[in-house]
Amino acid sequence: MGKMDHILADIKPLDKEAMAEARKRQDDLTKPQGSLGQLESLSIQCAGIKGSPRPRITHKVIFTLAGDHGVTKEGVSAYPSEVTPQMVYNFLRGGAAINVLAQHIGARVVIADLGVASILERHPDLRDRKVAMGTQNMAKGLAMSKEEAIRSIEAGIELVEEELSKGMDILGTGDMGIGNTTASSAITAALTGADVAVVTGRGTGVDDKGWERKVKVIQKALERNRPDPKDAIDVLSKVGGFEIGGITGVILAGARHRIPVVIDGFISGAAALVATTLSPHIKPYLIASHQSVEEGHRIILDHLGLKPLLNLGLRLGEGTGAALGIFLVEASLKILDEMTTFSEAGVSVKEDSSQK
Amino acid sequence: MGKMDHILADIKPLDKEAMAEARKRQDDLTKPQGSLGQLESLSIQCAGIKGSPRPRITHKVIFTLAGDHGVTKEGVSAYPSEVTPQMVYNFLRGGAAINVLAQHIGARVVIADLGVASILERHPDLRDRKVAMGTQNMAKGLAMSKEEAIRSIEAGIELVEEELSKGMDILGTGDMGIGNTTASSAITAALTGADVAVVTGRGTGVDDKGWERKVKVIQKALERNRPDPKDAIDVLSKVGGFEIGGITGVILAGARHRIPVVIDGFISGAAALVATTLSPHIKPYLIASHQSVEEGHRIILDHLGLKPLLNLGLRLGEGTGAALGIFLVEASLKILDEMTTFSEAGVSVKEDSSQK
Repeated sequence: MGKMDHILADIKPLDKEAMAEARKRQDDLTKPQGSLGQLESLSIQCAGIKGSPRPRITHKVIFTLAGDHGVTKEGVSAYPSEVTPQMVYNFLRGGAAINVLAQHIGARVVIADLGVASILERHPDLRDRKVAMGTQNMAKGLAMSKEEAIRSIEAGIELVEEELSKGMDILGTGDMGIGNTTASSAITAALTGADVAVVTGRGTGVDDKGWERKVKVIQKALERNRPDPKDAIDVLSKVGGFEIGGITGVILAGARHRIPVVIDGFISGAAALVATTLSPHIKPYLIASHQSVEEGHRIILDHLGLKPLLNLGLRLGEGTGAALGIFLVEASLKILDEMTTFSEAGVSVKEDSSQK
Repeated sequence: MGKMDHILADIKPLDKEAMAEARKRQDDLTKPQGSLGQLESLSIQCAGIKGSPRPRITHKVIFTLAGDHGVTKEGVSAYPSEVTPQMVYNFLRGGAAINVLAQHIGARVVIADLGVASILERHPDLRDRKVAMGTQNMAKGLAMSKEEAIRSIEAGIELVEEELSKGMDILGTGDMGIGNTTASSAITAALTGADVAVVTGRGTGVDDKGWERKVKVIQKALERNRPDPKDAIDVLSKVGGFEIGGITGVILAGARHRIPVVIDGFISGAAALVATTLSPHIKPYLIASHQSVEEGHRIILDHLGLKPLLNLGLRLGEGTGAALGIFLVEASLKILDEMTTFSEAGVSVKEDSSQK
């Protein structure tokens, strides 16, 4: 049994007792019951994930994983593949959106090369987990072998496990990879059964013609490769990406180590589809940070039954939505832990209520 | 001309030049143009409000204003009026949701008594701006006189102006007042023309019978008082509340002093309706933090053409939604100010673009 299977076997259900205690406390805080909506349910979910009725968040980590896509040869993106390594360097210099938002919420960012199609300069903050120099062109064959697919997932698992000793109370996922909305649309179509045209968006900004080309390329890739919707590794290897596999591994490791997993937008959503296909026990560990502009992301969230916390018209990736989501999760846990109860505050309870 | 009219006369349009510069910078940051959605437009709005192409936020202030409502005698709320002063004490002790969230975002909270129906103990952090011991029962006559309505607005203006010297780069509005969703529904019906049943929700949690009673009481109040939808002061005096008038004043002063005004939920929305009826120049200064569970709030936001940043099922008030909204505004301004541009980062631009 490999590392991935070990992790999958070790994922446990949420702690019901901690959740019941958290619910009880939420209902006794000085506010009408339920009046903080999703902030209340989030805090209870996190209590179940962390096995504690009043969990706190100190250490926040965002994993931003990069990879390139052979399918860009088909002209599916508005940007050239060179942007992937250029943006990795931008992350390392601290000039990208994810750097700004991670600092805003007090999170550290782990930047990893899962399969960028060029040799990156060494940098103390860059984790080299390169599986290959980008995927193959899925319109002409497999994006990667099954071994590479598993290796990318295991690389994601290892990235999380290496960080555990520095503290990690919550994690967010993020991506960088020119061409990766094409792979994510293909994964989404394969695993949800939705039409390719419905799950395909504009990515970084293709025009109408580019969009039509993108849809045709994805259709071609799916027809040629025939991924098996019951076999997540088959789907990942045929039409996926290394950073998507890596994010899948980050999600698995988060669930295994009872860490709330805040997923970013469309690419992370595709990885969440892969992860939840590998194990149904993953889903309770997931928090959807936001609803991306990419229509395929809505299909994913509906399929997974996840309600996004934000809908700000974001479509950047990198973990930017996850960063904002982590802030809201932290808010929910501070509410649970820090607010006064009715009895402590001497506040009258509802007139028509049997509440203690 | 009184203080309110002076303020109204002094409200200027947004700074178009600063907005154009901010838009130009947003388009040159290392991300696809528009990919940060509402975060981009928010930053540009704030540039226009503050008259600076790269404004920063240091000092954040939330104004949580309390008042009582004579209409509670009609049995429109699930909680007794005593909860209003009890919650004010809870704010002063730091045990309420607004305290927790304000601390989470690094904001100070200004707590003021605009018209609580009991004598509150003096406290260094409580601003005494009491106009009267709660409003009169609007089902039986005017909630307050026109003089009191104006006095409540001017009290809100003064609260903001007193705080200016301590620094205020952004402000949020908040409320506490048992019965104030009843007043807000009445204001919303009066100023938008919407049906009372459509703009009336459950408040802190009335049951079906309570809701029907609440609708009838509001209908009765509107029929009896016949507020003039063209005259905001008439509406406020006939079916409003002192904290709602106070929040109106906070909004006016924010616009006057070019401070972004982050409005909370339904009660603050009703105050925003009053404010925008007083002057059409107010609207560009408003940022809607969230969409409340109260259906009337959606009617208000549609009427004002405001897109809420969050939709988390909140219905607490106090400024809790505004606090979360301020965090997002701050994120948007950090993006604008701190991210690297394409030329600085040496990142390739869009292949099919004429972008510099």
